[in-house]
This record gives sequence, C-alpha cells and structure tokens, in this order.
Amino acid sequence: MTAGFFDAIAPVAYEGPDSTNPMAFHHYNPDELVMGKRMEDHLRFAVAYWHSFAWEGGDPFGGQTFIRPWHPQDSMANAKSKADAAFEMFRILGQPYFCFHDADVRPEGNSFAENLKGLEEITDYFGQKMEETGTKLLWGTANMFSHRRWMSGASTNPDPDVFAFAAATVKSCMDATQKLGGQNYVLWGGREGYETLLNTDLGQEMDHMGRFLNMVVDYKHKIGFKGAILLEPKPQEPSKHQYDYDAATCIGFLRKYGLENEVKLNLEQGHAILAGHSFEHEITVAASEGMLGSIDMNRNDYQSGWDTDQFPNNVPEVALAYYHILKSGGFTTGGTNFDAKLRRQSLDAEDLIAGHIGGMDICARGLKAAAAMLEDGGLEDALTTRYAGWQTESAQEMLNSDLGTIFDRVLAEDINPQPRSGRQEILENYVNRFV
Amino acid sequence: MTAGFFDAIAPVAYEGPDSTNPMAFHHYNPDELVMGKRMEDHLRFAVAYWHSFAWEGGDPFGGQTFIRPWHPQDSMANAKSKADAAFEMFRILGQPYFCFHDADVRPEGNSFAENLKGLEEITDYFGQKMEETGTKLLWGTANMFSHRRWMSGASTNPDPDVFAFAAATVKSCMDATQKLGGQNYVLWGGREGYETLLNTDLGQEMDHMGRFLNMVVDYKHKIGFKGAILLEPKPQEPSKHQYDYDAATCIGFLRKYGLENEVKLNLEQGHAILAGHSFEHEITVAASEGMLGSIDMNRNDYQSGWDTDQFPNNVPEVALAYYHILKSGGFTTGGTNFDAKLRRQSLDAEDLIAGHIGGMDICARGLKAAAAMLEDGGLEDALTTRYAGWQTESAQEMLNSDLGTIFDRVLAEDINPQPRSGRQEILENYVNRFV
Amino acid sequence: MTAGFFDAIAPVAYEGPDSTNPMAFHHYNPDELVMGKRMEDHLRFAVAYWHSFAWEGGDPFGGQTFIRPWHPQDSMANAKSKADAAFEMFRILGQPYFCFHDADVRPEGNSFAENLKGLEEITDYFGQKMEETGTKLLWGTANMFSHRRWMSGASTNPDPDVFAFAAATVKSCMDATQKLGGQNYVLWGGREGYETLLNTDLGQEMDHMGRFLNMVVDYKHKIGFKGAILLEPKPQEPSKHQYDYDAATCIGFLRKYGLENEVKLNLEQGHAILAGHSFEHEITVAASEGMLGSIDMNRNDYQSGWDTDQFPNNVPEVALAYYHILKSGGFTTGGTNFDAKLRRQSLDAEDLIAGHIGGMDICARGLKAAAAMLEDGGLEDALTTRYAGWQTESAQEMLNSDLGTIFDRVLAEDINPQPRSGRQEILENYVNRFV
Amino acid sequence: MTAGFFDAIAPVAYEGPDSTNPMAFHHYNPDELVMGKRMEDHLRFAVAYWHSFAWEGGDPFGGQTFIRPWHPQDSMANAKSKADAAFEMFRILGQPYFCFHDADVRPEGNSFAENLKGLEEITDYFGQKMEETGTKLLWGTANMFSHRRWMSGASTNPDPDVFAFAAATVKSCMDATQKLGGQNYVLWGGREGYETLLNTDLGQEMDHMGRFLNMVVDYKHKIGFKGAILLEPKPQEPSKHQYDYDAATCIGFLRKYGLENEVKLNLEQGHAILAGHSFEHEITVAASEGMLGSIDMNRNDYQSGWDTDQFPNNVPEVALAYYHILKSGGFTTGGTNFDAKLRRQSLDAEDLIAGHIGGMDICARGLKAAAAMLEDGGLEDALTTRYAGWQTESAQEMLNSDLGTIFDRVLAEDINPQPRSGRQEILENYVNRFV
Repeated sequence: MTAGFFDAIAPVAYEGPDSTNPMAFHHYNPDELVMGKRMEDHLRFAVAYWHSFAWEGGDPFGGQTFIRPWHPQDSMANAKSKADAAFEMFRILGQPYFCFHDADVRPEGNSFAENLKGLEEITDYFGQKMEETGTKLLWGTANMFSHRRWMSGASTNPDPDVFAFAAATVKSCMDATQKLGGQNYVLWGGREGYETLLNTDLGQEMDHMGRFLNMVVDYKHKIGFKGAILLEPKPQEPSKHQYDYDAATCIGFLRKYGLENEVKLNLEQGHAILAGHSFEHEITVAASEGMLGSIDMNRNDYQSGWDTDQFPNNVPEVALAYYHILKSGGFTTGGTNFDAKLRRQSLDAEDLIAGHIGGMDICARGLKAAAAMLEDGGLEDALTTRYAGWQTESAQEMLNSDLGTIFDRVLAEDINPQPRSGRQEILENYVNRFV
Repeated sequence: MTAGFFDAIAPVAYEGPDSTNPMAFHHYNPDELVMGKRMEDHLRFAVAYWHSFAWEGGDPFGGQTFIRPWHPQDSMANAKSKADAAFEMFRILGQPYFCFHDADVRPEGNSFAENLKGLEEITDYFGQKMEETGTKLLWGTANMFSHRRWMSGASTNPDPDVFAFAAATVKSCMDATQKLGGQNYVLWGGREGYETLLNTDLGQEMDHMGRFLNMVVDYKHKIGFKGAILLEPKPQEPSKHQYDYDAATCIGFLRKYGLENEVKLNLEQGHAILAGHSFEHEITVAASEGMLGSIDMNRNDYQSGWDTDQFPNNVPEVALAYYHILKSGGFTTGGTNFDAKLRRQSLDAEDLIAGHIGGMDICARGLKAAAAMLEDGGLEDALTTRYAGWQTESAQEMLNSDLGTIFDRVLAEDINPQPRSGRQEILENYVNRFV
Repeated sequence: MTAGFFDAIAPVAYEGPDSTNPMAFHHYNPDELVMGKRMEDHLRFAVAYWHSFAWEGGDPFGGQTFIRPWHPQDSMANAKSKADAAFEMFRILGQPYFCFHDADVRPEGNSFAENLKGLEEITDYFGQKMEETGTKLLWGTANMFSHRRWMSGASTNPDPDVFAFAAATVKSCMDATQKLGGQNYVLWGGREGYETLLNTDLGQEMDHMGRFLNMVVDYKHKIGFKGAILLEPKPQEPSKHQYDYDAATCIGFLRKYGLENEVKLNLEQGHAILAGHSFEHEITVAASEGMLGSIDMNRNDYQSGWDTDQFPNNVPEVALAYYHILKSGGFTTGGTNFDAKLRRQSLDAEDLIAGHIGGMDICARGLKAAAAMLEDGGLEDALTTRYAGWQTESAQEMLNSDLGTIFDRVLAEDINPQPRSGRQEILENYVNRFV
Repeated sequence: MTAGFFDAIAPVAYEGPDSTNPMAFHHYNPDELVMGKRMEDHLRFAVAYWHSFAWEGGDPFGGQTFIRPWHPQDSMANAKSKADAAFEMFRILGQPYFCFHDADVRPEGNSFAENLKGLEEITDYFGQKMEETGTKLLWGTANMFSHRRWMSGASTNPDPDVFAFAAATVKSCMDATQKLGGQNYVLWGGREGYETLLNTDLGQEMDHMGRFLNMVVDYKHKIGFKGAILLEPKPQEPSKHQYDYDAATCIGFLRKYGLENEVKLNLEQGHAILAGHSFEHEITVAASEGMLGSIDMNRNDYQSGWDTDQFPNNVPEVALAYYHILKSGGFTTGGTNFDAKLRRQSLDAEDLIAGHIGGMDICARGLKAAAAMLEDGGLEDALTTRYAGWQTESAQEMLNSDLGTIFDRVLAEDINPQPRSGRQEILENYVNRFV
C-alpha cells in the first residue's frame, strides 16, 4: 500500500509546447517519429529506483527531509510498499524502463543468505508488477558501497573475504537482472579506489578489479545473458580517487584486462563534469571506441564540487549529447536513465513527478534538435571539408611511411602549411539554429 | 657574450642546513650518499632552457618584464649569446643536465630548411659547450605548439601538410638529441587535442597521433637511439582538451596503439594538479605499469586554474613523490627536470639562480626523507599487513575461480567480513616523522 | 585604410528565426519592442576594441595567429588604420556602442607625455568617426596591467611613482571618456592583488586602492562627468589573487571606503564562473544593493580554469541573467559589452563578424525570454507566496524584537515549524517554458 | 560508562622529536616557551565534539562505519555516556579546550522545550566534568542545519516561525556557553544561503540575517557575555551558495549591518580552500581588518570538491597560518579548534587519539617555525624595504592630493617608474629555512 502518496496525481499526458499545465508533457510525445523511429524508442527512459524511492533527503550536513509512507527500508513489508509506490509512479509517467540496486529494493540482512532471500522475494514481486504494467528493466546493479563492509572497496578490498562477498553479490544481482529480463548489467565502483595512497597497493587492486570484471563477463556468457555489461566512470566521491575515473581511463583499463570487446560504458553527465569533461566529450570518447552503452542523464551543478545529480534542464547541452549518440547509431541495449534526485527541499509527490516530467521534456527537445542537426548535415559537412586533405592518396601514403621519408619530402617540396580558420563561432551559431 | 648577466654570482656551494647564505645549497650535496648512491645520481637535475632563458616574462594580460641581453630570439647571434648565458648558469649551479625544445634555441626561420639549419648550427655550438662544461642533455623535444602553423594540432592537424611538417620537425629534433647524447626524447602535445568537438573528428585524430608515435618509435630504433621515448600528460591548456590528459589516459592510448613496451611517461606535478590528481597518484599509476620515465618537478598553485610552473617548495609533497620513485627503482634514463619558471616580477639574475637553488634544495630534502622512509620500511610493512589475506592459497584460488564457485562458498561458509581500520592518520603521522 | 579586410561583408540585417543565412541576425531586431522598449535600447550592445581589434591571437603557449592589416600597434598610422577597421565593423554590425582601453587605441610611448599625446590624437580621430557613424562610447578605461611598469599593481604598487603614473593615466582616460561622451568609466584591477602574500602588505595596498578610487570619484565630480564609475570584479588571473574578487567583495570594499553610493559594478559572466558563482548570482548580489551598473556578456568555458572570454551561446543561462537585470529595472547608463574574443583558430573576417552576430542573437533570445517570464509573473508569484509569512504584522514585530522575547514566545506557543517544499524542479520547468 | 573504549590508551606524553612512539607527542610540549609564552597558551587547542564523538562515519554514499558504545544519540543516557568518553579522551590528550553544538550533546526532542531541557541537563553534566578535569570551553554554537526544519535556512528561512525557532535556539546556546564559561560563541550558517535563486529573495534574506546577528550581539551585551561573537565563513555545502562565503564577504556583510566592531571571524583552512583561497589569505584579510577571532585547523584535500575536514598534516602550510596569526598579535579569546574528523575507515580508538596527536604535533611545529621567522624578522624586513617609498613625505602628500595634481606632477617631472624584483623565490627559500 502506498498510503495514497500519488493519489492526487493523474497520468501525465502529452499536451504540446503551448500547454501551461505543469503536470503535462510539452515535448515528450512517445509515439512521435524522429528520424523514422518513435521518440520512446530513441530515448528509452528509465527511472532510478534509488534516488526516487530509497533516498530520504539526507546530505552530509543533515538528515531525512522526505516523509514517505514506505520508509524506513527495514522490512520486506516496507520494501513491497515502496515497490507499490514505484510502479504507481511508473504508471503515471509512462516511461518504459526502471533501474535498481539490490540494496534499494530489499532490507539489509544479517548475512549474505538473508540478502539473497530478500532479493529473490522482492524481484519475484517486481516480476508480477512488470507483467501487469509493462514496465521493463533497463539495468540492474549491486550496491557495493553503502554498507560498512565495503568501506575499503569491493573487488579491490584488501580483505579477500570482501572480494568473495562482492562476487556472490554480483552473481545474485546478475541472476536477478536476467530473471527480470534486464537489458544491461551495470557496475559502478564507488569505493573501488582509495582514500590515501599510503595504505594502498594500487597495482594489486587494479589487477583484482580486472580479474573480477573478467569473472563477471564469464558469468554473463555462462548464463546466456544477452544484455551488455557496462562500467560507469566517476572520478571520485565517495573515494578520493576512483579507478574508473572517466571514459578514457575505463577504456584503458578494459583493454589492459582484455575486455575491450566485452564491456561498454554507462556515462553520466554529472560524472563527466566532476572529471573535468563535458558530457559530449565522454560520449565521443566512448563512441570513437565503439564502447558507448547507455547514459545517466542527470546534470551536475557547475559550481558544486560534489555529485549533485540534478534533473537535466539545459536543452543546448542535452542536444549535443544526443547528437553524438544519434551520430554513433543511437542506443541498442542502452537508454536514458535519470540518476537524478529531487533537491532535498522538494518534499512533495508533485515535486517527484514534476522533476521527471521536466527531465523527460528536456531530453525530448534535445533529441529533436539533435535529429534536426543530423538531418540537416551541417556539422558533418563541416567535418568533411575540414579533414578533406586526409582523403587524398598522398596523405594516406604518408600515414603509412616513416619520419625519414616525410622529412625528405618536406625539404624537397618546401612544405610550409598555412593555417585555415577553425570556424568555431560559426559552428556554434549553427547549433543555436536548432536548440 | 652574456653581457655579464651573471657576473656578480659565484658558483653555488653546499654549505649545510645551518647556513643562512641565500646563494648556497643547504641540502643539495651532490656527492652525499643516499641509500648507497650519490645524491646527484639519484636526482639527475635538469634545467629547462625554455622558462629560464627563452621566456620573457609575459602572461595573457601583459608582455615582457625581463630584460635579458640575449633577447629577442631573432638571430643566430642572439641564440649563441643565450647559449653562453645558459651554460654560464649551468656552471654556477653545477646541475648535471639540461633540456630544450628546438624553438628555444634557434631563431624561427621562414621554412623548414631554415629551421633545420639553425638547429644544426646551434646544436653544434651546444656540443662544444657541453664538452667544455660537462653538462649533459637529459632530453630534447620539439616545440609544436607555439608557431601559428600548429594552432590546430601537429600530428592531429586536419591538414596533412602540418602532419608532414611535424614529422620532419621531430626527426630533426631526435637527430639533434642523438647527436648531443640526450638520454630521452619527450613529446608533449600541447595542441594535440581540441578547442571544440564541433569541428573535431576525435577518433581520426587519435589514430593519426597513434600512427605518428609509432613512426617516432620506429625512427628511434632505426637510428639506434638508446634513450627512452617519453610522453608528457597534461589535461588542457593551451587546448580545451588534450588527448594526453593524464597518466592513465596516456597508458590506455599507448596500449591501444601497441606502444606499451616502447614509450614511458614524463610526469609533471603541475600537470597532475591540473588533471585533478596528486603527483604521487600519477607516479604510482605509471610505476604500476612500469612506465615511469622522468619527471618535471614544478608545482602548480592550488588556487590557480592554469599552469603556473612554480619551483617546488613543499617538502612533504616532494618527499612522497620521490618515495614512489625510489620504491619503483629510481630513475634510469630519466631525471628531475624543472619545468619551472620565475614569477614574472622576479627580474634579476639573482632570482633566477635562487629559484633553482630553492628547488634543488627542496628536492634534496624530499629525496632524503623518502630514502629514510624506505629504509625504515614502515609504509611497506603496513601494506604487507593490510593485504596479507591475499597471500593465502585460498585467496589465490578464489582469484582463479568464478562467480558461481565463490557464491557457493560464501553461502556455505556464511562469509561475513568485518572491516578493519585503514589507519590513515597513523600512516600520515608516520610520514611526518621523516619530513 | 583597412586594406579591405571587411570588403566581402555586407551590413548585417535582421532576417528572422527561419533564415539560414549565417551572416544575418535571426533574433536581434533593434526596433522590435520588448516590454514597450526597443530591443536595442534594452540591450545597449558594445563591441570591445581590445579583443576584436588589438588582440593578435596569442595565448601562453603560442604567438600571433591573426593576420590583420592594422598590426602591429606601434605607430599612429596603424592606430588609425585599426580605427578605420573598427568603425567599418561597427557599421556592418550596427551595434550602438563600443568600449576601449587607452593601450588598445594608441601606440605605447616612451613617457607619459607621449602616451597622452597619442591618446588625444586617436580620440580626436574617434570623435570624427563617431559623429559620422553614430556609434557611441559605452565606456572607457585604462589598461594598467599590460606594460611591465604595472607588474606589481597600479594603485596598489609598492612604488609610489607607479601610483602616480596610474593616477595620471586614469585622469587622461577619464578626460578622453568625457570628451567622447562616454556613458561610464570602468576600472578593472588586473594586477591590483598579489602573486604571493610573502611580499605583500595587503592592508596597506587595500587602503591605497580605496584612496585611489576616492580620487577617481572626486575627479568625476570635478569635471562633471555624468556617467557611472564602475568597478569590475575578477577573482584572479593574471594575479594569483585580485582584491576585486567578486561582487560581494567589491561591495564590501566600496562600503569600507565610503563609496557605496558613488560606484557601481560591471559584471562579467566569465569572471563570475572563475569566482565560483553563476552569473545570475553576481547580478542578484549587485542588484540587491542597487549597484548593478553594466555587464560583460562573455562566457567562460566550464572546464577551463582561465579566462576564456567566449561569445555567449547558451540561451537558458543568458535568459536568467537578463531576467534579473530587467527585474532590477534594466540598464540605465550601462549596457551589454562583449568582452569576448574569437578562438585563436578563427582567423577570418567572417569569423569576427559571425562571433558578434551569434552573441547578439543569443542575447536577444535571452532578453525576450526574460521579458516573457517577467510579464507572465510566475517566478515573482512564487516568491511572494514563499515569503508571505513575513508580510504579517507579527513577523515584522518579531524582526524588531530581541532574542529573549522570541525565546519566550517559542516556548509559550510551542512553535514547531513544518517545512514546505522549495519547488525547485517545478520552477526550473517553468523557466524552460520560456527558453 | 564508556564501556572501556579508551581503556588501552594511556595519557599522551611529550617524548620529543626523536621518539618513534606513535602514541606520544613529538613536538607539542605544552609548557615549552615560544616567544616567551607557553606553547599551550599560544595554540589553545580545542577538540570538536561533533566529528570526534557524534559523527558515525557516514558519507553521502554510505552509512555508519564506527561502532561506538555511546551511539545512537537518542537518549540522555547515551548523551552522558558520550560525554564520559569525550572527557576521558580530553584527559588522555590534555588539550585545554573543547567545542560543541547543541545537537551534538543532547538527544533531539519533539519540541523546543524538550531540546532546551536536554541541553540544560547535559551542560550541567559538562559543568561537573569540566570542574573535575580542568577542560574548558573554547566555544559553543547551535546546529541549525541538520534537522529538517532548517532545510531552507535558519534566520534566512522564508517561514518566520523558523526564524523564531532559530532565535530561541541561539539564545539557549548562548546561555549554555555563558554558563560553562565559554570564551566565544560561533555562528556557522550552513543553510543560510540558497539552493536556487529561482525561489530565493536574496536581499530580504540578507536583511534578516543581518537583523538576526544584531539580536545576537544585543543579547551578548544584555547577559554580559565577555567572549567574542564569531562568524564562520564557508562558500557552499550543504547549500549551493552560502551567504558567509569567505572572509571578505563576511566582513562586507558585518559592515553593512553595523557589526564590524562587534563580530569577528572563525576561519577554517578547509573552507578557505573550498572558497578558492589559501588559508593565510583568509587570515590576512581578517587580520588586516582586526577581525581575526579563532581558527579551525583542519585541511581540505586539494583534489576533493567537498569538505573533507582532515587533520592538518603539512607543516609548511600550517607555519604560514600561524605566522600571520602571531604577526597580528596571536589569539586572545580564540584558539585552534580541530573541526577535523577521522577518515571513515579509521575505526579504532587508537585512530581517534592518533589523529589528534598528529594534528597537535603539526601545529606545534608550525607555531615554532612561525615564531622563528618572526624573531628572525626576514619577512618583515623585506616588506619594509619593498614599501619604503611610501614612507616619504612626498608619497603621503600624493595620497592626500587628487588626480589633477598628480597628473601635473607626472608630466612635469616625467615620472617613468622602473620595476623592481618582487623576489618571490628568494622569500619562499627563506621560509623553507624554517619549516
């Protein structure tokens, strides 16, 4: 029973850009075709169980602000009440997917066996609800950072028993994800890193993390899981340094441990910002390696040095993100998850719904702008023109030659290249025609 | 002729920690044995030609402040006058090495041929001076970021002619480095990156950079250069994003292009800070992969978001850097280059000498503290204790097993690990006994 | 003679949002009425002489990239050629204002007398051109940071002779601004700060800066200058710390030295970002004190730690800036100056025009969105509702009482306030209806 | 009963720098004279109740890691058990002071009356213990940021009832501080700021905060509290923006509301870093205005964007802080509080003691270095020399003249100042002789 938390709120309908109804979609119109594909099938929205249902509004300087009928999460009864509320919200929003960690959905037990039993029971309950409502699972994951056992890492823990507990936990979460038809399995290593190098054997910890991820991939194949295994980069927080720092670091890690064809990335705008990158940078890096899996579309405040996980609200930024996603072929198993949470002052059910409405509308606008740019082709044309010199035979010959040969040619032909404009402002103006 | 710039300054002698003479070494004592090796041979100091002799004191908001008899650098006569001053300073300081870019040492010509001629003439002149003074070359490098031809990159330029000019330039600088007995050749890609993704084909540019570096390695083998090829990471500035972002990114890049056994890293404290890392982090990452080549020991101001390139002045930080260097075996071909420049208000010859004295003394203190910690063994003992569990046979068996096997064992044995203290403050206090 | 630099470019016309002509305005329509006032009169655009005409494309790692017929700036002939080009561009863009530093417009002389003579000659020339073209001066200012004499500050210099040179320079620039009918006089203290506290008497320097600014205000009154005196905050760069750090710091400084009714602020988006603030924060702080004077509407890259001075390109951000400006009554003597520069790869005349077109269009869109929000009143209504409790008599009585009285009432009435939602997401969604 | 938490730990003795006993002081020697005053009387150490006894090891991504016999804080019995443990630790460390918030020391009640009763009961208990042990109160303060009632601010809350609750709370905490002989009363406004300007009337909130602080000062005088009222700057976190951003902002605020002679500042190293400043900057700013009250000597990690509150461990940095404190006359009512917490992996009683030992030793080393520099006088001499020009009569006359007079003199005398070296590296080397 959700104690009527969402009772006052009707399913959210698309009313178009001119509507002033704050509880309607103004841009997200699931069936609208964008580049020949339904908007829903492009965006593949997922709601994040943890922020929207498990989080109580605390921050490092204050405790709970939200009063939810399903808190605290200390019993299976409350876990089911929470699930009732969650699926009620999914019905209201109509988004196709959700995502969860084990620790979001079951009470914390006193042993691995208790955790496992809780996970099995609640995922059975989810299974029924998913069948009733049609909501699907975009990805499952294990929370291996909140309980004190994980304080020094999971697969990178100095204690092998924690590695064991982590392995068992991930197996149980992969099984649960498989059972529920999840389309991906995600690993975010919130404490796979260090607080201080003084007590850390970084090389050994990386090797253990590489070995662990290989086990995960092996298990995926063993059980025939068809989804993607995704690694989620974040540079720090909670740890001082996290090994999965950013897209380039993760890709290097995957290549070192022979996983570059097995694992892709789940990229988050907020984590990109914290790592000193733009979101489109992270997307482009992953896409250039064929490793773009899925995204968390929640923004970070540019003035805050910690993860703020806000709903996206800036169309020009979101449009560039989707531009690079569409350009690389769009999502396959991945989608757009909101790892976004309400501000802790946003106490009401209406806030929770409105946060999602706003985020979905922003993404819809971004997607449409991105598609329009791709269809217009202006950016691609500019790239083609700028790099045209490399299409010549002589340029390709040079690429396959050596320093000595090139040196001789530069001297012989007195090569003295003259710079050409990079046209950045003109391209920025072009983008602003679409957003 | 140096026009007597350093006339008032005598060679710098070691006078010990109690001396109050600002123009003496208080800690750097080249012949003093540290862990059985001469201090000079551990630290392998190099002076950076560019900041100490080419830079005129400008910043983005103001021009030249330094009045040097060898400026401007527009003729071979001035280039030689500058060399005279440089070697005079090397004699005063007594450091064993120096480093230079081509553009620091010769006037800029109107063609590649002119540049080449200038480089050959000045490096001949260097050769004589090196023989006379005994100063050696730690590394050579090519400046492929200052001239306007490089504004859109060198090996990553959209124009193949710039790639060609870069290849010819690097060949000439490798030849010069070889001629002068240089111990390493460094590549810093100041404009190998982008200003905006809107006009950038990141994947193609990375491929060209990878190909270019392979040519460099091939050429090294062709000419029998015995030194190391080193890549220098920096996250940004001058470019918005640079592909050689940090150690982990560079290592991933090297592995992708098959160069992980051919190229090492030249790490800089200031660049580490700009990338969001501590210097010891970057050193540890490189060392854990066997790719620690050499260092630039100049710090960044923690409150400034651009490269400040200050002489090091914080012993506790420098000690941790050398701790990880010594732990990984110390320098082989590499050394301690100061990519450090005076503040632009530090106008006098005395400032230039004092900046180097201070930096060398700080490094000497750091080295001695690092050696004392290694010899005491406290940090290593703490690591051994912390990771002892992994030395057991069962832990190693687990590492070679799979998720299902581990899962069964966790359930069967009811594994429920209890956290143990990470002891960070105790280890920090330990370090403070030595610095 | 501008050597035909802009010859290929026709005056920029308004063609409406559907035009795809990159050299037309799509949103900036000077005569369009917004809230009953012409758009041009709201925005009051100014072109910044320094970035658009004096800057040669250099950065800390590279030199000139731009080839302009009026460079270098070493003669009065080139100064006039530059002025010809500038006024030609003003004619093309049709913006009503421009801004300049003395050092942008005259060659650097060997004495104050020579500088003065150059300034008088070129401003006479400006006077004729302004009369011919109708372009007006938004503000004048003195460059007291580029020449080496200013390296340790202007009014805060340890050398009283530099203070004297600064005083004479500002007098000459105020006279020039008055002569040209300038509407404001701006002071940006790029080197009024320090590189290290070790050589700085901060208290004395602040007192000198306060005294200097009082002299400026006295001189304004003496010559009957009707415009505003404006201080421009920036936290750092070129100096490690600048005394005019941000709006709040400047306001505290003005109040300390008795100038809070005499001086207002010129706020820049880029400087706000570098100080850790949003632009609307800085605007709101200044407006809440009645000290909002004028703005520099150029953005900083969020991932770069130095001043990037890019043309604005994000409508949602610009709209919030103009919202707070309009809410505070709009500009009086102030306006929208672009302290924005091309990227150094943007070599062509077309880039220079397009950069301004894009910036002006973005501002026009932001202004219209801001006006629509103000006219709709949704944000103001939300504020009124949220703070309604303070409109009661009892709340105002409490404000005028004391801790003891309130304590007694809290106990007596058992006051136990219940939080109400802050509704942030709903308000963000509201804003997104307009941008 | 502390359940023997500290049973294994003996009082910490001074054993000198050569001791290798990790549970001894190596530098902090309370009775040692520094500049003629006991070290204890210079440093005036205080332990922070909140981090050392109330905090359970949680962070935004994980819960409790510490197992303390006095947790949870939900009853007066546990509050007393916690007090027993705290005073036991004070006995072990021997530091002269402690600090607390109301919410650290009493259970949270259901009404203000219950909170008040709890505070009175526990402070009576403190009173006995303070008498028994001789430990004194450096400062008291109110926690007006943790409970959900404060989520939108305390004195700046849109709801006047929250202002009332805050006023009553502060009165109760000032009374408690007075009762216990506290030497200062501190206000840190963790939620006096905003999450979004969209729902904030910044001007009104500042006025309320100003009025509130005036009430606090009035109440101080009414009750004859002899200590100082201190404001503690922090730029953000938990709020996006906090009004007491940094020292300069606070000083401007105090001046605006007529409190510049009534309130001083409590400065924290960590907060300085988060605001983009060095700690010595904040100290110097406050000292230059005579508003330096007290310090929190806990550092922030330079790579973390949130408040890390670590024990200090860098002598060179700490020495510069104490240098400016000693130079300004040293502490009067203020002292050195550690607002420092263990890392959450530091689980053991030994870690808690060692963290404090390390911090106290670092401060002792810093103090001694600072005193040695002051006694040597090198930095002061350098300042005197650098600013000597301002001691002339003509310079002072100029300061009292006007722009026109100075302009005439510059022209007449052809004043053309030549820069002199700022000698930064030489001064940095000087400092390194002492640290």
